[in-house]
Amino acid sequence: MKRTIVLLSGGIDSTTTLAIALAEHSEAYALSFDYGQRHQIEMEAARRVANSLGAKEHRVAKIDLRIFGGSALTDNVAVPKKRSEIEIADGIPVTYVPARNTIFLAYALAWAEVIQAADIFLGVNAIDYSGYPDCRPEFIEAFQTVANVGTKAGVGGRRFHVHTPLIKLSKAEIIRKAVELGVNLSLTHSCYDPSPEGLACGGCDSCLLRLKGFREAGIPDPIRYVK
Amino acid sequence: MKRTIVLLSGGIDSTTTLAIALAEHSEAYALSFDYGQRHQIEMEAARRVANSLGAKEHRVAKIDLRIFGGSALTDNVAVPKKRSEIEIADGIPVTYVPARNTIFLAYALAWAEVIQAADIFLGVNAIDYSGYPDCRPEFIEAFQTVANVGTKAGVGGRRFHVHTPLIKLSKAEIIRKAVELGVNLSLTHSCYDPSPEGLACGGCDSCLLRLKGFREAGIPDPIRYVK
Repeated sequence: MKRTIVLLSGGIDSTTTLAIALAEHSEAYALSFDYGQRHQIEMEAARRVANSLGAKEHRVAKIDLRIFGGSALTDNVAVPKKRSEIEIADGIPVTYVPARNTIFLAYALAWAEVIQAADIFLGVNAIDYSGYPDCRPEFIEAFQTVANVGTKAGVGGRRFHVHTPLIKLSKAEIIRKAVELGVNLSLTHSCYDPSPEGLACGGCDSCLLRLKGFREAGIPDPIRYVK
Repeated sequence: MKRTIVLLSGGIDSTTTLAIALAEHSEAYALSFDYGQRHQIEMEAARRVANSLGAKEHRVAKIDLRIFGGSALTDNVAVPKKRSEIEIADGIPVTYVPARNTIFLAYALAWAEVIQAADIFLGVNAIDYSGYPDCRPEFIEAFQTVANVGTKAGVGGRRFHVHTPLIKLSKAEIIRKAVELGVNLSLTHSCYDPSPEGLACGGCDSCLLRLKGFREAGIPDPIRYVK
Protein backbone atom coordinates (compact mmCIF):
# COMPACT_ATOMS: atom_id res chain seq x y z
CA MET A 1 0.00 0.00 0.00
CA LYS A 2 1.32 3.41 -0.98
CA ARG A 3 2.24 5.68 1.89
CA THR A 4 1.41 9.35 1.77
CA ILE A 5 2.02 12.32 4.03
CA VAL A 6 -0.98 14.60 4.40
CA LEU A 7 -0.65 18.03 5.96
CA LEU A 8 -3.64 18.42 8.23
CA SER A 9 -4.81 21.57 9.97
CA GLY A 10 -8.29 20.33 10.71
CA GLY A 11 -9.90 22.85 8.38
CA ILE A 12 -12.18 21.95 5.47
CA ASP A 13 -9.43 21.99 2.84
CA SER A 14 -6.89 19.75 4.57
CA THR A 15 -9.63 17.44 5.81
CA THR A 16 -10.97 17.00 2.28
CA THR A 17 -7.40 16.48 1.07
CA LEU A 18 -6.92 13.69 3.62
CA ALA A 19 -10.17 12.09 2.41
CA ILE A 20 -8.92 12.27 -1.18
CA ALA A 21 -5.57 10.68 -0.26
CA LEU A 22 -7.42 7.87 1.54
CA ALA A 23 -9.86 7.42 -1.36
CA GLU A 24 -6.82 6.69 -3.54
CA HIS A 25 -6.17 3.69 -1.28
CA SER A 26 -3.09 5.12 0.29
CA GLU A 27 -1.91 4.71 3.85
CA ALA A 28 -2.05 8.29 5.07
CA TYR A 29 0.33 9.73 7.64
CA ALA A 30 -1.22 12.97 8.85
CA LEU A 31 1.02 15.79 10.01
CA SER A 32 -0.14 18.82 11.96
CA PHE A 33 1.75 21.78 13.35
CA ASP A 34 1.41 23.36 16.70
CA TYR A 35 3.03 26.64 15.72
CA GLY A 36 2.01 28.94 18.49
CA GLN A 37 -1.51 29.46 17.25
CA ARG A 38 -3.49 31.56 19.62
CA HIS A 39 -5.81 28.64 20.25
CA GLN A 40 -5.48 24.91 20.57
CA ILE A 41 -8.85 24.29 18.98
CA GLU A 42 -7.24 23.77 15.58
CA MET A 43 -5.09 20.95 17.00
CA GLU A 44 -8.13 19.24 18.50
CA ALA A 45 -9.95 19.46 15.17
CA ALA A 46 -6.94 17.91 13.40
CA ARG A 47 -6.88 15.05 15.92
CA ARG A 48 -10.62 14.41 15.54
CA VAL A 49 -10.38 14.44 11.76
CA ALA A 50 -7.36 12.12 11.61
CA ASN A 51 -9.11 9.59 13.86
CA SER A 52 -12.44 9.87 12.13
CA LEU A 53 -11.12 9.44 8.59
CA GLY A 54 -8.70 6.67 9.52
CA ALA A 55 -5.21 8.11 9.10
CA LYS A 56 -2.56 5.46 9.76
CA GLU A 57 -0.73 7.85 12.08
CA HIS A 58 -1.11 11.44 13.19
CA ARG A 59 1.83 13.43 14.47
CA VAL A 60 1.99 16.98 15.71
CA ALA A 61 5.23 18.88 15.20
CA LYS A 62 5.65 21.67 17.70
CA ILE A 63 7.33 24.62 16.05
CA ASP A 64 7.60 28.11 17.40
CA LEU A 65 7.15 30.65 14.62
CA ARG A 66 6.53 33.34 17.23
CA ILE A 67 10.26 33.75 17.69
CA PHE A 68 10.27 35.57 14.35
CA GLY A 69 6.93 37.37 14.66
CA GLY A 70 5.30 38.75 11.57
CA SER A 71 1.70 37.51 11.36
CA ALA A 72 -1.74 38.00 12.82
CA LEU A 73 -1.95 34.25 13.43
CA THR A 74 1.10 34.19 15.68
CA ASP A 75 1.43 37.79 16.92
CA ASN A 76 -0.97 39.66 19.14
CA VAL A 77 -2.55 41.74 16.41
CA ALA A 78 -6.27 41.88 15.74
CA VAL A 79 -7.72 39.52 13.14
CA PRO A 80 -9.69 41.65 10.66
CA LYS A 81 -13.44 41.10 10.71
CA LYS A 82 -16.38 41.42 8.34
CA ARG A 83 -14.32 42.35 5.34
CA SER A 84 -15.98 42.36 1.94
CA GLU A 85 -15.13 39.74 -0.68
CA ILE A 86 -13.17 42.38 -2.54
CA GLU A 87 -11.13 43.24 0.53
CA ILE A 88 -10.44 39.56 1.24
CA ALA A 89 -9.32 38.96 -2.32
CA ASP A 90 -7.14 42.08 -2.44
CA GLY A 91 -3.46 41.47 -1.87
CA ILE A 92 -1.76 39.32 0.71
CA PRO A 93 -3.79 38.93 3.92
CA VAL A 94 -2.42 40.06 7.32
CA THR A 95 -2.88 36.43 8.32
CA TYR A 96 -0.04 35.52 5.97
CA VAL A 97 2.69 33.69 7.93
CA PRO A 98 6.16 34.11 6.38
CA ALA A 99 7.39 30.92 4.72
CA ARG A 100 4.74 28.85 6.46
CA ASN A 101 4.10 26.32 3.71
CA THR A 102 7.83 26.08 3.03
CA ILE A 103 8.37 25.12 6.67
CA PHE A 104 5.40 22.73 6.66
CA LEU A 105 6.53 21.02 3.46
CA ALA A 106 10.10 20.75 4.77
CA TYR A 107 8.84 18.80 7.79
CA ALA A 108 6.58 16.69 5.58
CA LEU A 109 9.58 15.92 3.40
CA ALA A 110 11.64 14.82 6.41
CA TRP A 111 8.90 12.43 7.52
CA ALA A 112 8.30 11.20 3.97
CA GLU A 113 11.95 10.35 3.63
CA VAL A 114 12.00 8.43 6.90
CA ILE A 115 8.89 6.33 6.14
CA GLN A 116 9.83 5.95 2.47
CA ALA A 117 6.90 7.86 1.09
CA ALA A 118 7.17 9.84 -2.13
CA ASP A 119 3.80 11.57 -2.03
CA ILE A 120 2.87 14.60 0.02
CA PHE A 121 -0.67 15.96 -0.02
CA LEU A 122 -1.29 19.63 0.69
CA GLY A 123 -4.73 21.23 0.68
CA VAL A 124 -3.75 24.58 -0.79
CA ASN A 125 -6.12 26.45 -2.94
CA ALA A 126 -5.30 29.11 -5.48
CA ILE A 127 -8.86 30.41 -5.86
CA ASP A 128 -10.15 31.56 -2.49
CA TYR A 129 -6.65 32.18 -1.11
CA SER A 130 -4.98 33.69 -4.11
CA GLY A 131 -3.28 36.15 -1.78
CA TYR A 132 -0.90 33.58 -0.32
CA PRO A 133 2.20 33.23 -2.49
CA ASP A 134 2.94 29.79 -1.03
CA CYS A 135 -0.38 28.42 -2.27
CA ARG A 136 0.47 28.83 -5.95
CA PRO A 137 1.44 26.10 -8.43
CA GLU A 138 4.85 27.73 -9.10
CA PHE A 139 5.68 27.45 -5.42
CA ILE A 140 4.61 23.80 -5.28
CA GLU A 141 6.72 23.00 -8.32
CA ALA A 142 9.76 24.78 -6.88
CA PHE A 143 9.41 22.84 -3.65
CA GLN A 144 9.25 19.53 -5.54
CA THR A 145 12.61 20.35 -7.07
CA VAL A 146 14.02 21.05 -3.60
CA ALA A 147 12.72 17.66 -2.46
CA ASN A 148 14.16 15.80 -5.40
CA VAL A 149 17.63 17.35 -5.32
CA GLY A 150 17.95 17.90 -1.56
CA THR A 151 17.27 14.46 -0.12
CA LYS A 152 19.04 11.12 -0.01
CA ALA A 153 15.88 9.51 -1.39
CA GLY A 154 15.59 12.01 -4.22
CA VAL A 155 19.22 11.61 -5.19
CA GLY A 156 18.65 7.84 -5.02
CA GLY A 157 15.92 8.10 -7.63
CA ARG A 158 12.68 8.52 -5.71
CA ARG A 159 10.49 11.19 -7.34
CA PHE A 160 8.74 13.27 -4.73
CA HIS A 161 5.38 14.59 -5.68
CA VAL A 162 3.49 17.31 -3.85
CA HIS A 163 -0.19 16.73 -4.61
CA THR A 164 -2.55 19.69 -4.41
CA PRO A 165 -5.89 18.20 -5.40
CA LEU A 166 -7.84 21.32 -4.37
CA ILE A 167 -5.68 23.91 -6.04
CA LYS A 168 -8.23 24.82 -8.70
CA LEU A 169 -11.42 24.21 -6.78
CA SER A 170 -13.68 26.86 -5.26
CA LYS A 171 -14.64 26.50 -1.61
CA ALA A 172 -18.11 25.34 -2.70
CA GLU A 173 -16.60 22.63 -4.91
CA ILE A 174 -14.33 21.51 -2.06
CA ILE A 175 -17.32 21.26 0.27
CA ARG A 176 -19.27 19.22 -2.30
CA LYS A 177 -16.25 16.95 -2.80
CA ALA A 178 -15.98 16.43 0.98
CA VAL A 179 -19.65 15.52 1.26
CA GLU A 180 -19.32 13.18 -1.74
CA LEU A 181 -16.46 11.40 0.07
CA GLY A 182 -18.52 11.05 3.24
CA VAL A 183 -16.51 13.51 5.32
CA ASN A 184 -18.17 14.70 8.49
CA LEU A 185 -17.57 18.43 8.17
CA SER A 186 -18.87 19.10 11.68
CA LEU A 187 -15.45 17.91 12.87
CA THR A 188 -13.58 20.64 11.02
CA HIS A 189 -12.48 24.02 12.31
CA SER A 190 -11.77 27.12 10.21
CA CYS A 191 -12.03 30.21 12.43
CA TYR A 192 -8.99 32.41 13.05
CA ASP A 193 -10.51 33.87 16.18
CA PRO A 194 -12.77 31.39 18.00
CA SER A 195 -14.52 32.08 21.32
CA PRO A 196 -13.05 30.54 24.49
CA GLU A 197 -15.58 27.71 24.09
CA GLY A 198 -14.32 27.04 20.57
CA LEU A 199 -17.21 28.54 18.64
CA ALA A 200 -16.37 30.12 15.28
CA CYS A 201 -16.55 33.94 15.20
CA GLY A 202 -18.34 34.13 11.84
CA GLY A 203 -16.55 37.36 10.94
CA CYS A 204 -12.90 36.59 10.14
CA ASP A 205 -11.84 35.99 6.55
CA SER A 206 -11.71 32.25 7.12
CA CYS A 207 -15.26 32.10 8.53
CA LEU A 208 -16.56 34.35 5.76
CA LEU A 209 -15.02 32.16 3.04
CA ARG A 210 -16.34 29.04 4.75
CA LEU A 211 -19.87 30.43 5.07
CA LYS A 212 -19.86 31.62 1.48
CA GLY A 213 -18.65 28.19 0.35
CA PHE A 214 -21.47 26.37 2.15
CA ARG A 215 -23.98 28.90 0.84
CA GLU A 216 -22.82 28.40 -2.74
CA ALA A 217 -22.69 24.63 -2.33
CA GLY A 218 -26.29 24.71 -1.06
CA ILE A 219 -25.30 22.72 2.01
CA PRO A 220 -25.82 23.86 5.62
CA ASP A 221 -22.63 24.43 7.65
CA PRO A 222 -22.81 21.91 10.53
CA ILE A 223 -20.54 23.82 12.93
CA ARG A 224 -21.67 26.31 15.58
CA TYR A 225 -21.01 30.04 15.44
CA VAL A 226 -21.01 32.68 18.16
CA LYS A 227 -24.58 34.15 18.48
CA MET B 1 23.35 48.53 6.65
CA LYS B 2 22.39 45.32 4.89
CA ARG B 3 20.77 42.68 7.08
CA THR B 4 21.70 39.06 6.66
CA ILE B 5 20.56 35.81 8.24
CA VAL B 6 23.40 33.44 9.08
CA LEU B 7 22.73 29.84 10.01
CA LEU B 8 25.01 29.09 12.92
CA SER B 9 25.74 25.70 14.45
CA GLY B 10 28.88 26.77 16.25
CA GLY B 11 31.11 24.55 14.11
CA ILE B 12 34.04 25.82 12.07
CA ASP B 13 32.10 26.18 8.83
CA SER B 14 29.14 28.20 10.10
CA THR B 15 31.42 30.28 12.34
CA THR B 16 33.63 31.18 9.39
CA THR B 17 30.50 31.93 7.37
CA LEU B 18 29.31 34.35 10.05
CA ALA B 19 32.73 36.04 10.00
CA ILE B 20 32.49 36.36 6.20
CA ALA B 21 28.98 37.88 6.40
CA LEU B 22 30.22 40.39 8.99
CA ALA B 23 33.34 41.18 6.96
CA GLU B 24 30.98 42.26 4.16
CA HIS B 25 29.70 44.93 6.57
CA SER B 26 26.34 43.37 7.04
CA GLU B 27 24.24 43.30 10.18
CA ALA B 28 24.13 39.59 10.88
CA TYR B 29 21.18 37.83 12.50
CA ALA B 30 22.41 34.43 13.62
CA LEU B 31 20.00 31.53 13.72
CA SER B 32 20.65 28.23 15.48
CA PHE B 33 18.50 25.15 15.89
CA ASP B 34 17.97 23.10 18.95
CA TYR B 35 16.74 20.02 17.13
CA GLY B 36 17.01 17.35 19.75
CA GLN B 37 20.75 16.95 19.43
CA ARG B 38 22.07 14.50 21.92
CA HIS B 39 24.09 17.23 23.53
CA GLN B 40 23.60 20.91 24.26
CA ILE B 41 27.27 21.67 23.75
CA GLU B 42 26.61 22.68 20.15
CA MET B 43 24.10 25.32 21.32
CA GLU B 44 26.60 26.75 23.79
CA ALA B 45 29.25 26.96 21.08
CA ALA B 46 26.80 28.81 18.81
CA ARG B 47 26.02 31.28 21.58
CA ARG B 48 29.72 31.90 22.32
CA VAL B 49 30.49 32.40 18.63
CA ALA B 50 27.57 34.78 18.00
CA ASN B 51 28.60 36.94 20.97
CA SER B 52 32.28 36.83 20.19
CA LEU B 53 31.94 37.77 16.52
CA GLY B 54 29.31 40.44 17.13
CA ALA B 55 26.10 39.14 15.60
CA LYS B 56 23.32 41.71 15.89
CA GLU B 57 20.99 39.06 17.28
CA HIS B 58 21.12 35.34 17.94
CA ARG B 59 17.99 33.26 18.08
CA VAL B 60 17.58 29.58 18.74
CA ALA B 61 14.63 27.84 17.11
CA LYS B 62 13.60 24.74 19.00
CA ILE B 63 12.47 22.08 16.56
CA ASP B 64 11.91 18.43 17.29
CA LEU B 65 13.14 16.29 14.43
CA ARG B 66 13.08 13.24 16.71
CA ILE B 67 9.37 12.85 16.08
CA PHE B 68 10.30 11.52 12.64
CA GLY B 69 13.46 9.60 13.57
CA GLY B 70 15.89 8.62 10.87
CA SER B 71 19.38 9.83 11.83
CA ALA B 72 22.34 9.09 14.07
CA LEU B 73 22.28 12.71 15.24
CA THR B 74 18.75 12.51 16.55
CA ASP B 75 18.17 8.78 17.15
CA ASN B 76 19.94 6.56 19.64
CA VAL B 77 22.24 4.85 17.18
CA ALA B 78 26.01 4.76 17.50
CA VAL B 79 28.04 7.44 15.74
CA PRO B 80 30.65 5.63 13.58
CA LYS B 81 34.24 6.09 14.75
CA LYS B 82 37.71 6.05 13.24
CA ARG B 83 36.55 5.59 9.70
CA SER B 84 39.03 6.01 6.91
CA GLU B 85 38.87 8.97 4.54
CA ILE B 86 37.53 6.67 1.86
CA GLU B 87 34.76 5.41 4.13
CA ILE B 88 33.85 8.97 5.14
CA ALA B 89 33.70 10.07 1.51
CA ASP B 90 31.68 7.06 0.39
CA GLY B 91 27.97 7.66 0.01
CA ILE B 92 25.61 9.48 2.32
CA PRO B 93 26.68 9.37 5.99
CA VAL B 94 24.50 7.81 8.70
CA THR B 95 24.60 11.24 10.28
CA TYR B 96 22.46 12.52 7.41
CA VAL B 97 19.30 14.12 8.81
CA PRO B 98 16.39 13.99 6.35
CA ALA B 99 15.57 17.40 4.88
CA ARG B 100 17.63 19.17 7.54
CA ASN B 101 18.91 22.04 5.44
CA THR B 102 15.49 22.43 3.82
CA ILE B 103 14.00 22.89 7.28
CA PHE B 104 16.82 25.20 8.40
CA LEU B 105 16.54 27.37 5.29
CA ALA B 106 12.76 27.50 5.61
CA TYR B 107 13.12 29.00 9.09
CA ALA B 108 15.85 31.35 7.89
CA LEU B 109 13.53 32.48 5.12
CA ALA B 110 10.72 33.19 7.59
CA TRP B 111 13.01 35.34 9.71
CA ALA B 112 14.51 37.04 6.65
CA GLU B 113 11.07 38.01 5.47
CA VAL B 114 10.12 39.46 8.85
CA ILE B 115 13.29 41.57 9.26
CA GLN B 116 13.34 42.50 5.55
CA ALA B 117 16.57 40.74 4.75
CA ALA B 118 17.21 39.23 1.34
CA ASP B 119 20.46 37.43 2.10
CA ILE B 120 20.86 34.12 3.87
CA PHE B 121 24.31 32.73 4.60
CA LEU B 122 24.78 28.99 4.92
CA GLY B 123 28.13 27.33 5.61
CA VAL B 124 27.65 24.24 3.48
CA ASN B 125 30.54 22.64 1.80
CA ALA B 126 30.47 20.38 -1.23
CA ILE B 127 34.02 19.06 -0.81
CA ASP B 128 34.38 17.43 2.60
CA TYR B 129 30.68 16.70 2.88
CA SER B 130 29.88 15.63 -0.63
CA GLY B 131 27.67 12.91 0.81
CA TYR B 132 24.96 15.30 1.93
CA PRO B 133 22.53 16.01 -0.93
CA ASP B 134 21.37 19.22 0.73
CA CYS B 135 24.87 20.70 0.65
CA ARG B 136 25.05 20.82 -3.16
CA PRO B 137 24.71 23.88 -5.39
CA GLU B 138 21.66 22.45 -7.18
CA PHE B 139 19.85 22.22 -3.85
CA ILE B 140 20.78 25.79 -2.92
CA GLU B 141 19.54 27.04 -6.27
CA ALA B 142 16.27 25.14 -5.97
CA PHE B 143 15.73 26.62 -2.53
CA GLN B 144 16.29 30.14 -3.82
CA THR B 145 13.48 29.61 -6.29
CA VAL B 146 11.21 28.47 -3.46
CA ALA B 147 12.11 31.64 -1.54
CA ASN B 148 11.44 33.91 -4.48
CA VAL B 149 8.12 32.41 -5.54
CA GLY B 150 6.83 31.36 -2.13
CA THR B 151 7.02 34.55 -0.09
CA LYS B 152 5.23 37.88 0.00
CA ALA B 153 8.61 39.63 -0.24
CA GLY B 154 9.69 37.52 -3.22
CA VAL B 155 6.44 38.12 -5.06
CA GLY B 156 6.86 41.81 -4.22
CA GLY B 157 10.20 41.87 -6.01
CA ARG B 158 12.82 41.14 -3.35
CA ARG B 159 15.41 38.68 -4.69
CA PHE B 160 16.45 36.21 -2.04
CA HIS B 161 19.98 34.98 -2.25
CA VAL B 162 21.35 31.99 -0.37
CA HIS B 163 25.10 32.60 -0.01
CA THR B 164 27.35 29.61 0.39
CA PRO B 165 30.83 31.15 0.55
CA LEU B 166 32.49 27.89 1.62
CA ILE B 167 30.89 25.59 -0.92
CA LYS B 168 34.07 25.02 -2.91
CA LEU B 169 36.63 25.29 -0.11
CA SER B 170 38.44 22.42 1.56
CA LYS B 171 38.39 22.23 5.35
CA ALA B 172 42.00 23.48 5.39
CA GLU B 173 41.08 26.47 3.26
CA ILE B 174 38.12 27.25 5.53
CA ILE B 175 40.37 27.13 8.58
CA ARG B 176 42.89 29.46 6.95
CA LYS B 177 40.06 31.82 5.98
CA ALA B 178 38.80 31.82 9.57
CA VAL B 179 42.24 32.62 10.96
CA GLU B 180 42.67 35.35 8.34
CA LEU B 181 39.39 36.91 9.53
CA GLY B 182 40.53 36.79 13.14
CA VAL B 183 38.08 34.11 14.25
CA ASN B 184 38.87 32.46 17.58
CA LEU B 185 38.44 28.81 16.59
CA SER B 186 38.77 27.63 20.18
CA LEU B 187 35.14 28.73 20.58
CA THR B 188 33.90 26.31 17.93
CA HIS B 189 32.55 22.80 18.39
CA SER B 190 32.47 20.05 15.77
CA CYS B 191 32.20 16.68 17.52
CA TYR B 192 29.13 14.46 16.97
CA ASP B 193 29.79 12.54 20.18
CA PRO B 194 31.42 14.71 22.86
CA SER B 195 32.24 13.54 26.40
CA PRO B 196 29.93 14.66 29.22
CA GLU B 197 32.43 17.46 29.94
CA GLY B 198 32.16 18.64 26.34
CA LEU B 199 35.49 17.36 25.05
CA ALA B 200 35.61 16.29 21.42
CA CYS B 201 35.89 12.51 20.85
CA GLY B 202 38.51 12.74 18.12
CA GLY B 203 37.08 9.71 16.32
CA CYS B 204 33.77 10.65 14.70
CA ASP B 205 33.69 11.77 11.06
CA SER B 206 33.34 15.38 12.09
CA CYS B 207 36.38 15.28 14.41
CA LEU B 208 38.42 13.40 11.80
CA LEU B 209 37.62 15.98 9.10
CA ARG B 210 38.37 18.80 11.51
CA LEU B 211 41.72 17.33 12.58
CA LYS B 212 42.68 16.64 8.98
CA GLY B 213 41.77 20.22 8.07
CA PHE B 214 43.97 21.72 10.79
CA ARG B 215 46.78 19.34 9.86
CA GLU B 216 46.59 20.35 6.19
CA ALA B 217 46.30 24.03 7.09
CA GLY B 218 49.42 23.71 9.25
CA ILE B 219 47.61 25.26 12.19
CA PRO B 220 47.17 23.63 15.61
CA ASP B 221 43.59 22.85 16.60
CA PRO B 222 42.94 24.93 19.74
CA ILE B 223 40.13 22.77 21.18
CA ARG B 224 40.58 19.92 23.67
CA TYR B 225 40.05 16.27 22.83
CA VAL B 226 39.37 13.25 25.03
CA LYS B 227 42.70 11.64 26.16
